Amino acid sequence: MTVNLERLKERFEVISRFGKIGDTGVCRPALSKTEREAFDVVAGWMEQAGMTVRVDHFGNLIGRLEGKNPNGPVLMIGSHLDSQPYGGRFDGTAGVLAGLEAVTAMAERGIVPEVPVEVVSFCDEEGWRFQKGLFGSRGITGRVEPEELELMDRDGITRRQALRDFGCDPDKLHESVYLPGQIGAYLELHIEQGPLLERQNRPVGIVSGIAGPLWLTVTLKGRAGHAGSVPMRERRDALVGAAEIVVALNRMVQEEEGVPTVGTVGSLRLFPNSPNVIPEEVEFTVDLRDIDMNRRRRIEERLREAIAQSADRHGLAYSIRESANLQPRYCAEWMKRILHEESQAMGLEAPELMSGPFHDALVMADVCDFAMIFVRCRNGVSHSPEEYASYEDLALGTKLLYRGVLRISDQLSRRRRPTVK
Amino acid sequence: MTVNLERLKERFEVISRFGKIGDTGVCRPALSKTEREAFDVVAGWMEQAGMTVRVDHFGNLIGRLEGKNPNGPVLMIGSHLDSQPYGGRFDGTAGVLAGLEAVTAMAERGIVPEVPVEVVSFCDEEGWRFQKGLFGSRGITGRVEPEELELMDRDGITRRQALRDFGCDPDKLHESVYLPGQIGAYLELHIEQGPLLERQNRPVGIVSGIAGPLWLTVTLKGRAGHAGSVPMRERRDALVGAAEIVVALNRMVQEEEGVPTVGTVGSLRLFPNSPNVIPEEVEFTVDLRDIDMNRRRRIEERLREAIAQSADRHGLAYSIRESANLQPRYCAEWMKRILHEESQAMGLEAPELMSGPFHDALVMADVCDFAMIFVRCRNGVSHSPEEYASYEDLALGTKLLYRGVLRISDQLSRRRRPTVK
Repeated sequence: MTVNLERLKERFEVISRFGKIGDTGVCRPALSKTEREAFDVVAGWMEQAGMTVRVDHFGNLIGRLEGKNPNGPVLMIGSHLDSQPYGGRFDGTAGVLAGLEAVTAMAERGIVPEVPVEVVSFCDEEGWRFQKGLFGSRGITGRVEPEELELMDRDGITRRQALRDFGCDPDKLHESVYLPGQIGAYLELHIEQGPLLERQNRPVGIVSGIAGPLWLTVTLKGRAGHAGSVPMRERRDALVGAAEIVVALNRMVQEEEGVPTVGTVGSLRLFPNSPNVIPEEVEFTVDLRDIDMNRRRRIEERLREAIAQSADRHGLAYSIRESANLQPRYCAEWMKRILHEESQAMGLEAPELMSGPFHDALVMADVCDFAMIFVRCRNGVSHSPEEYASYEDLALGTKLLYRGVLRISDQLSRRRRPTVK
Repeated sequence: MTVNLERLKERFEVISRFGKIGDTGVCRPALSKTEREAFDVVAGWMEQAGMTVRVDHFGNLIGRLEGKNPNGPVLMIGSHLDSQPYGGRFDGTAGVLAGLEAVTAMAERGIVPEVPVEVVSFCDEEGWRFQKGLFGSRGITGRVEPEELELMDRDGITRRQALRDFGCDPDKLHESVYLPGQIGAYLELHIEQGPLLERQNRPVGIVSGIAGPLWLTVTLKGRAGHAGSVPMRERRDALVGAAEIVVALNRMVQEEEGVPTVGTVGSLRLFPNSPNVIPEEVEFTVDLRDIDMNRRRRIEERLREAIAQSADRHGLAYSIRESANLQPRYCAEWMKRILHEESQAMGLEAPELMSGPFHDALVMADVCDFAMIFVRCRNGVSHSPEEYASYEDLALGTKLLYRGVLRISDQLSRRRRPTVK
């Protein structure tokens, strides 16, 4: 036995206690005390597996298993331990614990990889706390802008302050950036967060690529006034304008049949938010995704038109801020081939599928080859306490990860140093 | 000179410092420390005018000027010092300071009224903090339900706790309820909060009646899920459902031309409120007002239908809670006649107009005759820092109030004790 299902399960149970909501839910904000507690426990397990552990200045937890060639390109495996505000126990955590389990299994069998293997829990993948995610992976790849440190959470705490409270030094971020070529490949296991593997009755899938999301933050500003006296025709009601846009977006992403376009307004706040006051200002986010970038662009254009029209109709000023605009990224053929071969050897028929949700892998794709393993989840539900994947499926995915790590680390030591992209 | 414009103005300036926002705005929540500070200052002015002052167990500030007949029916004048979360300095405050000024003017001239005159600042007229307003006036008229004490504000503080922190005893509320017939009449000055006086170029108006508002709280519950992976057709997005209802309400109140119907969604919150999570639950308020109760009822029915249809379309569970449902109330003919006569004697042509916003007078109407004086405000704006009325207009309204108080108190001593309604 390589991967230990019982140990894996027990570790999921332990980690799910940090930020537990109800029976099955989790709220573990990035850079919070609960995340730090989870880090400390995982760090202990990493050390038990013979890894050297550090929390870098971006708030990433990184465990390193030394390779025969300590200067060889690193094989990085990981995901994230931060969760949605009302999330489940598998999203992110699965990739960290699976990576840890793969390394633990190697240590138990006395396997020393050819190149260093690092298991990472990236800081703030989810992005809801400071309204900009993938922080840790963008950090180590040199893609964090200095202004981001001033972004504030709902309690008025800046990212800079949160990093400090977490024990990081935001003035030393540059020390935590990897050199070009230092990371040879990135491998991530994640629950699917969609319904396809379940429909095909397959426990594990191999990812072909990741759809790039467009994130917009739209602000509409009208005029407050008394809900009992300002005549309807004289109003500049920001919420009515926003509601029209929410309805329009929902319609336009569904017009073309049989395509995977998705559009969501997930966050919205209004001001002053009082029952008998006409809303003066509304801010909301738009999340728009498609594998087909041309279609995504066409819908974006129409959405911008709808925003302009609604603002015009209701006398509102508006602004649109783009907080993410990512291209789709495709997994490395050679890494996919290894995963397909290993899954066949395990007797799994692992289908290939696209990822609608993004992951830290989308960022890592900028600096190295990457691949991803998906594990079936129930009803395609994620970002919810109802999120569920069986430990048997997770163990199968972890076993494929383990086999992948052995072959990919081996391959990395033989490949020419990849050119910097 | 009876009413002192300079003193009135200075007192507005002083009170507007408690909870000041920006240059002209005010946030003075009911039962807050800032309201208490404003109470203390007003209480001092009341005492200077020879009134005895108390804060009752509902959190009302009441100053009493004794009458020649201390057992005669009380003439109550007042309004409220609590403000909207993002409000102006005139709404509510005008009525309290005008009442105080009228009594001060009487004291300065050595006038002892026939019946007791009480100046009151009612607790929590605005109702946003605990989502149920007109608390103080409902309190003294025996219309507060015990459950209301458990309503919580956004910080989880109950009304019961807030009353205690304010120095009131929520177990002794009954001691602060007036006996039937004890209040003879109620008179309130308020800024118009609408555009009609300004359009007619008149500083002061006499109110004919108050439109009754319907307040509903609507909750829609769908299912959370990942914004990047759950296909559009499988979603149960509570915000899309809510947005359709906001749009539908806005349309249906505007269908009939030239009527004063107004409908507003002023408050809305969603859960979990994260950019890449499909909204699971949305709660919003509906404020619907009309002078014509039949029309209001027809629109309410159509709104309820629209809610049911939208919930059905998006697979949402829903509930509708009625937090206020008030009938329109009309001012007493004899009090209006006095105000008309006095305004003519002052050389004012004070038009009669309906009030869209409600006031504590709407509640007082249940137990006694009432009348209201409106003062012109700029652009009809209220519940906003842009709210503005000139001190000259306010002084004119206050002078009319003063003259009204003299005659109404006189009249009350001669009228038969009004029958309990």
